[in-house]
Amino acid sequence: MAGRILATYRIAASAGDIEARARALASEQSVEMPVEAIRDARVLAEVIATVESIRPSGDAFEVALGIAAETTGGEASQLVNMLFGNCSLQPEVELVDVAFPPGYAKAFPGPEFGIAGLRAMLGAPQRPLTCSALKPQGSTVDHLAHLARTFALAGIDVVKDDHGLANQAFSPFAERVPAVQQAIAEANRETGGRTLYAPTLSGDPRALADQLRVARDCGLRMALVAPMLVGLPVFVELRRESGLALLAHPAFGGATRIAPALLLGKLFRLFGADATIFPNHGGRFSYGRDTCLAIARAARDPWEDLAPVLPVPAGGMSVERVPEMVADYGRDTMLLIGGGLLVAGDRLAERSREFAEKVRRS
Amino acid sequence: MAGRILATYRIAASAGDIEARARALASEQSVEMPVEAIRDARVLAEVIATVESIRPSGDAFEVALGIAAETTGGEASQLVNMLFGNCSLQPEVELVDVAFPPGYAKAFPGPEFGIAGLRAMLGAPQRPLTCSALKPQGSTVDHLAHLARTFALAGIDVVKDDHGLANQAFSPFAERVPAVQQAIAEANRETGGRTLYAPTLSGDPRALADQLRVARDCGLRMALVAPMLVGLPVFVELRRESGLALLAHPAFGGATRIAPALLLGKLFRLFGADATIFPNHGGRFSYGRDTCLAIARAARDPWEDLAPVLPVPAGGMSVERVPEMVADYGRDTMLLIGGGLLVAGDRLAERSREFAEKVRRS
Repeated sequence: MAGRILATYRIAASAGDIEARARALASEQSVEMPVEAIRDARVLAEVIATVESIRPSGDAFEVALGIAAETTGGEASQLVNMLFGNCSLQPEVELVDVAFPPGYAKAFPGPEFGIAGLRAMLGAPQRPLTCSALKPQGSTVDHLAHLARTFALAGIDVVKDDHGLANQAFSPFAERVPAVQQAIAEANRETGGRTLYAPTLSGDPRALADQLRVARDCGLRMALVAPMLVGLPVFVELRRESGLALLAHPAFGGATRIAPALLLGKLFRLFGADATIFPNHGGRFSYGRDTCLAIARAARDPWEDLAPVLPVPAGGMSVERVPEMVADYGRDTMLLIGGGLLVAGDRLAERSREFAEKVRRS
Repeated sequence: MAGRILATYRIAASAGDIEARARALASEQSVEMPVEAIRDARVLAEVIATVESIRPSGDAFEVALGIAAETTGGEASQLVNMLFGNCSLQPEVELVDVAFPPGYAKAFPGPEFGIAGLRAMLGAPQRPLTCSALKPQGSTVDHLAHLARTFALAGIDVVKDDHGLANQAFSPFAERVPAVQQAIAEANRETGGRTLYAPTLSGDPRALADQLRVARDCGLRMALVAPMLVGLPVFVELRRESGLALLAHPAFGGATRIAPALLLGKLFRLFGADATIFPNHGGRFSYGRDTCLAIARAARDPWEDLAPVLPVPAGGMSVERVPEMVADYGRDTMLLIGGGLLVAGDRLAERSREFAEKVRRS
């Protein structure tokens, strides 16, 4: 746990103020006290964050800080605390990117399966993958199982819970998950397919432990988790202990203050996601195409021993956009269409097959 | 778990678009699919969020949604998911306030001790309270214990870890906490005082369990926790199971997208904080006085059976500002000065006594 983490921030400040502002940020994100009051030579030399560079960027400045890796304790909550704990409360500061010193990532688990592992589970070594979602919440378990069967018969690779399906009274986890898993297993037997179910894990650590018991009892291999909702360190623990492939959901991830490629790509990968869902451009969310491609790069680019993560563009996508999305993201991608299939109503089975086949052929 | 939660959002949209935008938000934050594709009458009537009101607010609109309480499952991660899960990714949307239906709060623990309980622990039934912080991180355990002794001898009520003191190699939790706790106990015996130590709990659930064992072994009664770092549902579990008074820290809480009074006041109270630290106006952070007073109101105003929470203004405060802060916040407040004492250097003991006495007399 040696060396410096290079964290780049965008700071709105005037040219006259930026040097002092950068030094104040370096103190805020390390010792959090006036530097002149520190007498310990080791703290002065090794613990206080350093201002590595300041450069103009549009009407603001990009400031790179060198944060001592040792201060993060090699642990997720303390890492994000050092990167963006207090300064998340300073609206003029955004966290743009982070570069870790060589070997730093070894303290974290990274993806257990990654793209290759997911492909092996799904029996799809090369083509782009497909995903749809069970919704709306409030539906009966029977209805959700019926939807899951329809998607699996259509050959969709992954059927996930809507991220709003948690453990509510209308479809409790312990009833829903075995029923949906069984519906998918039956459909797989009929088709010879290998569709996987990814239910939502949510709640406090005790609830998660209960959900993992249910998951193991019914042979589940994958789950959907929103790291920002359960807590980043809890996500790391799920990676280490669940044995499940983890599909990360961006809910509660904020919009503009941490760069999406950093949070949903790099950090979720470091913490152990195998696949990462993000709102694709042109849907219900405002990320531009460059942002989306940057997320995919952060998920898949070589990074020491960390397996690449499957990018999952989503959020108001349609079957018509399949060719464009495959052209944008390439084959190591899973396309997620939820509501865009469900609007087909009575033609859901047909529309789902169309989606699966269009992706298979692309 | 019946009735509707009234969630108020500020949405940047044109007058021509706002009705459609509000309906889209209602779908996003409940069923997350096109409403026309839903056939289940119960879902249509009881699960889809409703647009309760739209009113102009400056150059934007305030939109109130009625979110079915049932969709939150009475659990912290799912509650914030329903309030601000997906729409946190839509930068034109901010979460302004939330009103819960009668009885809703019973699903959550609320504060175990609250202001009255903290006062009883500290033997200070009426006066404003004082707090200081052990820093910088990187210091030796001996230095931190010496600082703690100095603060305790000066009569400061609560000595907390800096929120950057986690479980790093330079002062591991299992060494630091017993040493500091002992230094404070010895100082208390000398003075007859009742200073309490609040170390930082951080990390994944296994690490927290280890830290709680250390805490119990050395008779700790209070801890500092950043709910947004450990995860909101983990914070609730700590409230239910730790037996400790919980001092909530705002790190990683973001600045502008969830109103501070809602997050640091109302929600942290619902989830079980006994005291809530927030950056006071006029320090290193940008909250205005109105925002700070709103946090204090959300922490203390009557709310069904939930005990009031102690507001802890902080973030670059000084002894000189004590009278003004007491005038602003009243007696049911704990004033936190960290770096503002430490800059005194060799005069730290004197300056700490001055702080404690100034507050006692006010």
